[in-house]
Formats: sequence, structure tokens, C-alpha cells
Amino acid sequence: MPVTVNACPLALSTAGYRALPPEITRLMSLALETPGLLSLAAGFTDNLTLPLDAVTRAANQLAADSASNPEHLQYGVNAGRPGLRSLVAHRLALLEPALDSDSLLPGIFITNGSQQALYLAMQVLCDPGDIVLVDRPSYFVYLEMLRGMGIQARSIPVDADGLIDPVALRQVLANIHHKGQRNRLKAVYFVSYFSNPTGRSLSAQEKETLAHLLHAEDCIVPVIEDAAYRELYFDAPHPAPTILADPAWADFPRLHLFTLTKPFATGLKVGGGVCTDPRWLAPMQHLKGHQDFGTANFTQAICEHALQSGEYDAHLQTLRASYAAKMHTLDRALEEAGLRSLGWSWQRPAGALYLWLTGPAHLDTGIDSDFCRAALDAGVLYVPGDLCFGDHPATNLVRLSYGVLSGPALIEAARRFVTAARRFA
Amino acid sequence: MPVTVNACPLALSTAGYRALPPEITRLMSLALETPGLLSLAAGFTDNLTLPLDAVTRAANQLAADSASNPEHLQYGVNAGRPGLRSLVAHRLALLEPALDSDSLLPGIFITNGSQQALYLAMQVLCDPGDIVLVDRPSYFVYLEMLRGMGIQARSIPVDADGLIDPVALRQVLANIHHKGQRNRLKAVYFVSYFSNPTGRSLSAQEKETLAHLLHAEDCIVPVIEDAAYRELYFDAPHPAPTILADPAWADFPRLHLFTLTKPFATGLKVGGGVCTDPRWLAPMQHLKGHQDFGTANFTQAICEHALQSGEYDAHLQTLRASYAAKMHTLDRALEEAGLRSLGWSWQRPAGALYLWLTGPAHLDTGIDSDFCRAALDAGVLYVPGDLCFGDHPATNLVRLSYGVLSGPALIEAARRFVTAARRFA
Repeated sequence: MPVTVNACPLALSTAGYRALPPEITRLMSLALETPGLLSLAAGFTDNLTLPLDAVTRAANQLAADSASNPEHLQYGVNAGRPGLRSLVAHRLALLEPALDSDSLLPGIFITNGSQQALYLAMQVLCDPGDIVLVDRPSYFVYLEMLRGMGIQARSIPVDADGLIDPVALRQVLANIHHKGQRNRLKAVYFVSYFSNPTGRSLSAQEKETLAHLLHAEDCIVPVIEDAAYRELYFDAPHPAPTILADPAWADFPRLHLFTLTKPFATGLKVGGGVCTDPRWLAPMQHLKGHQDFGTANFTQAICEHALQSGEYDAHLQTLRASYAAKMHTLDRALEEAGLRSLGWSWQRPAGALYLWLTGPAHLDTGIDSDFCRAALDAGVLYVPGDLCFGDHPATNLVRLSYGVLSGPALIEAARRFVTAARRFA
Repeated sequence: MPVTVNACPLALSTAGYRALPPEITRLMSLALETPGLLSLAAGFTDNLTLPLDAVTRAANQLAADSASNPEHLQYGVNAGRPGLRSLVAHRLALLEPALDSDSLLPGIFITNGSQQALYLAMQVLCDPGDIVLVDRPSYFVYLEMLRGMGIQARSIPVDADGLIDPVALRQVLANIHHKGQRNRLKAVYFVSYFSNPTGRSLSAQEKETLAHLLHAEDCIVPVIEDAAYRELYFDAPHPAPTILADPAWADFPRLHLFTLTKPFATGLKVGGGVCTDPRWLAPMQHLKGHQDFGTANFTQAICEHALQSGEYDAHLQTLRASYAAKMHTLDRALEEAGLRSLGWSWQRPAGALYLWLTGPAHLDTGIDSDFCRAALDAGVLYVPGDLCFGDHPATNLVRLSYGVLSGPALIEAARRFVTAARRFA
């Protein structure tokens, strides 16, 4: 008997009505209609560099160690495995000697990727109509989440070089005060290390300026630092202190987001946060209790084992070299195909998975643009830059990821991209 | 440098303010203060029956099969692994020949345990102040979720034998109409197979009566059937058709919840739902996209492999025998220690993990009761029955789980429980 679709009315909640399909799925649908397409859109690592041996060894070692009591296959606790939380605390303190692992530990919680931590943070802080300051450009999946929650994103202004512009920011904050919206400003969010989409990192000075300005303008609100790509540098870590370590942020409630599986095995989906304020942390934990009462214990145990055995760090070393090489391949291929001579510009990032391209000023790279159509016709997919803006989107930008494709495919994808660009030069 | 806690004000959203710690954590805290306590509270299987070998074999086989392309360690899609969704469709159709797997498939989605599906369902349907009809008694973690969301639970009335009372239900629905609350009634929820907490299953006739009454009273609203324990029967499956198969429910938007890991390895946390109405399913998927954009691919792949290899079903056979034996152990131990002679009564369930005890009419078994204190003093923990009611809680009930403890520990825990009961006879 087939399951029938009902014709009766269905009343949705305001959240239910507001939930919209992500823009990016439209792009993916377009992509599916185009056989042979090469995708520079997806922001993840390639399957060939996934740590299959490390994960399998971890599973076997866990089995050997726990034969009489395989607790890692049992429900865990809502906050995450104590052993994993402790390893994260030590790791963060090792990355930044100003921090002390014992002080970090109570604030650490594990989630289904750092995405869930971000969702919980917004759920607990914001009602529809509230305002969040975001970096410019920002992580587009986060921006879509904000839209889904009815939260307004307001950009932290930047200058022509992409650096935070203190004068313009003071103006934005003054406007918020002036319009009586100060009590609607609920949080500040930025990707501080090898950002998605720009690949740029915030300098220590920029971050401090931001803190001082928010402080001076009476905007001490919760701050979220998304450090998803912090460990995926090419040559050296970015030296700016986290919001956890820099005293400029000491007065702010802070949430530092980490992922354990983005630069390891995304299919394990383990991330989390360090929250400095129990008034913020506790309700996030209560909501997580309602949503799933704890991230899968098994995937946490795999991460814990890989961190402890050193396989996690060994894998990171491999990844860094591999993605540095792939970045250079794509960069060189675009260069050699003559993209700069067509009025395009970009900088080489020092980590993560993205090239952030500026096209000619007049160009529109949006999903419905002629340029996007031309790129699809040429057989290449990218992320339109306008998706990455909280407000006043720039329309001539493009995010390319060298994460998924192999070297030769990157070269071919670059060639196709430049073919499309040539039609609009 | 220690991470400091801020003294500045922190504004929470309404959801943030509303989020409260689960009642059960208070019980757990009490438990932690009582060394040597035996817990009959937790509703999960024991570590000794966890399928360590099956999971490890699945991990190794996945590794062997995917050496050149370990896609199970990569991000998956939001709805869940296509292979797993297809296996679930076939499994449901095999359990219930009236169903057709091809028709089921588009409605199937995978979540972080069935708990997340339940959360998404409520998010999409309900605003604060809305009403949900729930079984009496009901799953207390769900009831706490409703409270956290500001949703009112209204019980489906039952008679002295615990059977749905059609006359009283008609009165409840008439009252909802009379008070002008019909547009606030957003869903109906029940655990239909070997319920948590009662162990009772809804008969085919009860379920049909419920459907007919809702229909007749112009209350065709989304219906959620939580079938978490459906496959954890002792001797034979419960024969009542699901809401997917029974034509009495054909006009209702329906969500049938399943778990793959409750009767396998809870630490994998893979469950989901079958939703018959795309208008309900689509926004749930959009919200899941915001929350985590997909359940961990690796744990899904382990489940998929275990289902396919037959190891899942082999494990279920073992579990059924093991939990039937443990139920009999606890039942007999309570009986032999003389609990019935102290004014207590209960029925032997035909599946799942719980005995549902009715104490003397005057007794208060709540968390703050003298009886609860006496049980803790005697060294045994239980779930107070009043937590399991959406409204008008009965106060003389107790849920005991035989899931976690071994046979000898169950006997000792029963002895302790009867010791406490004797003080209140």
C-alpha cells in the first residue's frame, strides 16, 4: 500500500515557516543537471587524504582495550567524553601557552561538528529580529542559519584590503545605538584563522582593535570565534592569540569553536566549543540535552584515540603538505591560463581550502547570473561570493575550493573557469 | 592565565531562558552522592551485550571495501546515507507487508538518534503555547523537551487498565474546541510498542479508535508514533499495524520514528523517521541542515553494514533473549521479596526494558519524597513515575529498568527496593 500525501491543512510554527532550503542546494541541483562538471564549490578535503588506516586502527585498538567493557558503544554524557574534553583542553593549552588546561576544561563541550555548537549558541542568545555582527565576508552556512532563525546579520566593515575598518565600525555601532537597537545586538561572530571564504586570518592587532571598539561603544556582548581552520595551516600556525588568551577580550562572554574532524575525517562529525560563561554554557547544554542528549560516543572515542596515539597529528602533517600543494596547483593554473590579465585578482592563502577571487568590478557572479551559467556551460562549479555577505553583498566575487579535486582535475577546472571568465572580460 | 567568568550582563533568548536542566539530572546528582548505589533508573542496555565484535568487523570490512575511496569518512548528505535509507525502507516493508518500500523511501530521513527527529518535528510544528496530545504516561525525556519549548502536553485519557478511554478523550477534545484552542493543537504523540515507561503496546483497536475520534472531532493534526522499542520484543512482535500501514490514519500527516542503535549500540546514535507529508518533512530537513547538515556518515555506514551482513539481526536475537531473562529476574526478585504483599502491583511486559510499578495509593514516589530518600538510603535508584505525565501526574508510580544491571545485581537492587517499600507499607 503506498503511503499517501495528505490534502488536509498543515500548520507550521514560525520556525517551520521560516526554514528555507539553503541557497547552495540550488547550486547543487544545477550541478546535477550538468554531467562531467568539475566542482570547485564544496569545502571539504578529498577522499584520498581521509585517514582510513588511522580510523580503522583506532576502532580495532578500542575493541582490544575494551573487550570486557566496550563503554564507547554505550550512551555517553551530554557534554562529551571526559577523556576527549581533557585532551582538547591540553591541546588548546599546548597551542597557546598563555592558557591553562585546568581552567579551560569546565567550559569545553562536544557537539555534532562545530556547526551544532554554533546553532546552540544562536538558539540560546537570539530571538527573531535580533542582530549579530559578522565578519565581512563570512561563513555562508552560518549566514543561512541566521536567516533561518530570523536574525539580522550586520557586517563588521572592512577597508579595500579586507582589514577591519575601525572608523566605519564605530559608525555602525553608533547607528545601532542611535536607532535604539543596542538591546537587539546579541553577539559578534568571526572566522579568525584562514577564514572561509577568504583564507585570510585576523591579525592580533585587528582583533584587539575590534575588542577595544566594542568595549568603548558599550557593546560588550557574547563573542564567537570560529577557529575551524586554525590547524590547517600550510607552513606555520597563525600567531594571533585566540579570544580565550587575549586580555582585550577578558570582559566578554566568549565561545571559541573548534572542530576535530574537519582536518581529519569529516564523516565522524565531532567538534565543539569552549565557553567562558556558565550562564551561556548551561542553557546550550540543556538544549543539546533536548536535541540528542550527547554526540555519538563511538566517533568521540575514535577521535580521542587518534589524538592520544599521535595519529591525529601525523595525519594533520600530511594534510598540510597536501593542501598547500593543491592550493599552489590551482593558483598557478589560474595564473597560467591568464585569469589576472582578464581583470581578476586574488591572494595566496596561508592555510585552509579556499581561493577568494575578485572579478572585474562590473561582473555579477550570482547563482542566476550569466557568468554562473557560462561557468556551468564550461563545466565548472564555484560558490558565488554574494552568499558570503551578511548585508550589502559584493557581486563580483567567487570562492574556489581546492579541497576535493585532485591535481590534474584542478588544472582542468581552472582552465574551464578561465574559459568562462574570458567571455566576460 | 585562567579563563575568567564575566560579570557583565548576559541577555538570553526566550528559548535560552526557558531551557532548564532535566529533572533527571537532579536524580543523577543525588545518585552520585550515594556510593554503591544500584541504578534501576537508566533506560539502556548493559555494556556486556553491546555488539563489540559486530561493530569492529563492520569497521574493518568498510575499510577493506573502500580502500581506494573511503567515502564513509567524508561528509554525507543531510537526509542520510542513501544505502541506509533504502535498507530501512526494506526493513519496514518486511516487518509490515502492507507497506511498500519504494513508497516509504522518499519520506525516510536519518538523525542523531530518534531524539533529534522528535526535536525537529516539534520545532517545525509548534510555537510556545501550543498543545500536543501525549499518551498517558509518556516518554519523560520528550515531556521535558516540550516544557523546554513552552509547549503544553495534554494527556490522552486512559481507564483503570491503562487503555485509551474514548469517552474521556472526546471530552478532552471537546474542551479544546470549547476553549477556542483547536488552532493551538498541533500534534499527537505516543509510544505504541512496548512503551517507555509502561512496557505496554497499543492494540490495533485502541489505535484505530484514537484515529477515528480525532477525525470525528475535527482534529486531523500531525501524528508522531515513537516506535523505539518495536524490535525489542521478547517472544513475538506486537501485531498492531503502524500508523503508516493502518488506513484509519491515512488522512493524517504522519511521522513514524525508528531507532537503529537503541537495540544495537547506543553509542552510535543513529535513528530517524518516516514522514508521509513533504510539507512537514522539508522544513525538518532545512532545520537539520542548520543544526549539523547530516548525521555522522561513519556511524551510519556501520549500521548499514551490520544490517546488510545480518549481524544486526543476529544481535537482536541475542538481546531479546537476554532482556527477557533480565525482566524475569527482576520481576521474580520483586515478587519473592514480597513487594506485592506490600500493596504494589505491576504487569510483566512483552518487550523493552521497563517494569512499571503501582505503589499503594497514598504513596508519593517523587524526587523529593521520603520514599525516594528511603530508596537512596537503601542503595537503589529508580525513575519517579510523576515525571512521565504530561499533566495531572499520578504520584504513586515507579519505573524500574532491568537494562543496565546484571542478574545478581538486579536481585540485590530488588531486595533494596523492597526494603524501602516495607518502610512505607
